[in-house]
Amino acid sequence: MTHDSKRLTECANAIAAAGRRLGAQGMTPATSSNFSMRLDADHIAVTVSGRDKGALTVDDVMVVDMQGNPVATPARPSAETALHVQIYVQFPDANAVLHTHSRTQTVASRLYAKAGVVRFDGYELQKAIAGHTSHEQAIDLPVFPNTQQMPELVEQVDAWLKSDRPLYGYLIEGHGLYTWGRGMAEAERHVEAFEFLLACELDLRKLT
Amino acid sequence: MTHDSKRLTECANAIAAAGRRLGAQGMTPATSSNFSMRLDADHIAVTVSGRDKGALTVDDVMVVDMQGNPVATPARPSAETALHVQIYVQFPDANAVLHTHSRTQTVASRLYAKAGVVRFDGYELQKAIAGHTSHEQAIDLPVFPNTQQMPELVEQVDAWLKSDRPLYGYLIEGHGLYTWGRGMAEAERHVEAFEFLLACELDLRKLT
Amino acid sequence: MTHDSKRLTECANAIAAAGRRLGAQGMTPATSSNFSMRLDADHIAVTVSGRDKGALTVDDVMVVDMQGNPVATPARPSAETALHVQIYVQFPDANAVLHTHSRTQTVASRLYAKAGVVRFDGYELQKAIAGHTSHEQAIDLPVFPNTQQMPELVEQVDAWLKSDRPLYGYLIEGHGLYTWGRGMAEAERHVEAFEFLLACELDLRKLT
Amino acid sequence: MTHDSKRLTECANAIAAAGRRLGAQGMTPATSSNFSMRLDADHIAVTVSGRDKGALTVDDVMVVDMQGNPVATPARPSAETALHVQIYVQFPDANAVLHTHSRTQTVASRLYAKAGVVRFDGYELQKAIAGHTSHEQAIDLPVFPNTQQMPELVEQVDAWLKSDRPLYGYLIEGHGLYTWGRGMAEAERHVEAFEFLLACELDLRKLT
Repeated sequence: MTHDSKRLTECANAIAAAGRRLGAQGMTPATSSNFSMRLDADHIAVTVSGRDKGALTVDDVMVVDMQGNPVATPARPSAETALHVQIYVQFPDANAVLHTHSRTQTVASRLYAKAGVVRFDGYELQKAIAGHTSHEQAIDLPVFPNTQQMPELVEQVDAWLKSDRPLYGYLIEGHGLYTWGRGMAEAERHVEAFEFLLACELDLRKLT
Repeated sequence: MTHDSKRLTECANAIAAAGRRLGAQGMTPATSSNFSMRLDADHIAVTVSGRDKGALTVDDVMVVDMQGNPVATPARPSAETALHVQIYVQFPDANAVLHTHSRTQTVASRLYAKAGVVRFDGYELQKAIAGHTSHEQAIDLPVFPNTQQMPELVEQVDAWLKSDRPLYGYLIEGHGLYTWGRGMAEAERHVEAFEFLLACELDLRKLT
Repeated sequence: MTHDSKRLTECANAIAAAGRRLGAQGMTPATSSNFSMRLDADHIAVTVSGRDKGALTVDDVMVVDMQGNPVATPARPSAETALHVQIYVQFPDANAVLHTHSRTQTVASRLYAKAGVVRFDGYELQKAIAGHTSHEQAIDLPVFPNTQQMPELVEQVDAWLKSDRPLYGYLIEGHGLYTWGRGMAEAERHVEAFEFLLACELDLRKLT
Repeated sequence: MTHDSKRLTECANAIAAAGRRLGAQGMTPATSSNFSMRLDADHIAVTVSGRDKGALTVDDVMVVDMQGNPVATPARPSAETALHVQIYVQFPDANAVLHTHSRTQTVASRLYAKAGVVRFDGYELQKAIAGHTSHEQAIDLPVFPNTQQMPELVEQVDAWLKSDRPLYGYLIEGHGLYTWGRGMAEAERHVEAFEFLLACELDLRKLT
């Protein structure tokens, strides 16, 4: 079974548009960051490696299968495609995955690396994360050590999931944020909320 | 008596325009924030729940009566409509209410929650708050505890008002700012002034 | 002798354009700030009191004489017009005066109020201030106490000038910056340079 | 041999476009900063002294030879042209050189002046610097003392190069950043990466 070309065009456009918005907010420095959407049960649309994520066109989006292998293209997907695939496999509701790389995310990821987690508690904006209806419902954002070996990163995420703790996103140390949503709008809302919450936490650390 | 449709259109446009300006300044992350204007003695125009407040159209504004009940629409108003109604009832001069949710407001609201108030003194910009003509006229901005129960929030504001202290706006802990004005321009000027004053206070705390 | 209307139009346009640029940088919150240009030996073009300085039109600029009295208009000039007049009288080369009110300027003015001066030394950007050719040529920016009585402010500036110390601009505590130039371009360059230098000083205080 | 006029036009346009992007990010305050590209083995296109680098046109770019002397123009090149020439001579692969002057660069250059170097280690974004494939490959960015005597600056850079340590850019104390690339896109990526890494380092110093 091959993917639907109309769905691919829609997803490529949605990915490029999200990239422009996130890039304008300084979340995709240099050629960092990568984005994807689920095309169908067997295919994912993902950004091509090494492109400027704030200035994407539909030609910067390619198709991979659920093992992360390129489909009908000589292009090379992002080195971190394995993390996108993992999310689509683990979360059947997830249809869009965003990996961003803001200064706030990078700084927080280093600062909380030893603790292994950033806990958000008492923020009204926690309600922007799907399934949360109160500022009293604490949210844990794990921080995993960075490595250039993708299987090690995949394993770390798997270990968290197997511990039965909820997961709405994660930081990689010195690197950035992964989060996702049922659609691109929800995934972007999650990026915006985590960025806001992390920035507040850093401010409060400077001030108290 | 029903509201005037021309006045509703004017107010909806003013609310959408204010939302775009505040959104561009990062004051409406995710789907937070809500805005309203007084239509007439019996009606208020208020934002529909859950919309992106930085990208409002006139269709994202609805009418409620002075009990906060929807008028001639199946739409649901913001969960915090009770706070808007309270302001219009308590302040006959208030014709526009803005609730914003900037990072500075959120951080300050947590930092000053225990004190219960932020005092501004010695800032020339205090003159931007209606009725103030000198930097020597101190302004108290109260900070109320957050709760998902609107009646509790309403009661906290009432308690402050009954104590006969002046009120130009207030923070809710971990949540954001409420302020108002005789018209939308004055309400926006109050948001801009409180945001500036709070940011200065946080900077000075970091520096002294 | 009356002023030339073509020169007035040119100055009003230059003032409005500078206001838009400074406003876009957050230097004119609420209705703060005021700007002026010298029209001729006897007249000054200055912003009308209370306008939004980031959205000026030529109608927001009026003429005053060298005593600060309105000429051929019922409009009221900025309350601080006396400070503009003083600069044109004291500095025959000055043809544009800018008073801005950024958060950095306000915070620095409070932080250095007791010292009475901010000294810039070792910054390459000191060369952006007219007459400076080396980072080793230190620049003193005085900080005067704020007061709603203009004659007191005028007197403080006079006292500094009588002490024979050079003056390229000054801060008023809790208030903002005054600086000037031979033309509007130089005045704007001075605002940009002082803003940059003050921001660096605050950063270094946080970091050392 | 004279330079090719088509190549000059291309380079002047590339320099002006880079200036607009860097200026919009606040990296070229007042008339600071200067940019260049290699035209051929014997010529360099470089910005004319004293222009606003965020608003360059092709007329603000001139030609110098490999001794830094103006070619076929009465214009004066940037006072720091000698540093650009040095880079083209020392690095045969370098075809674009950017000198920027952001607040972060200025503050970091003063803070790390005594240490003489900023070391970046553990940041994924180190991979944005040419030749780096892992966050574990540390990068040293030297900080040289500032001086208005260009030969002294040239000598400091030479001393570093003779010590056989790799060099991808450098800071001058109180002044700003120099970096370069095989083309303008790579040079801009290096500015963006160093700016990001320096900002993270400053944040972490405030937070730990």
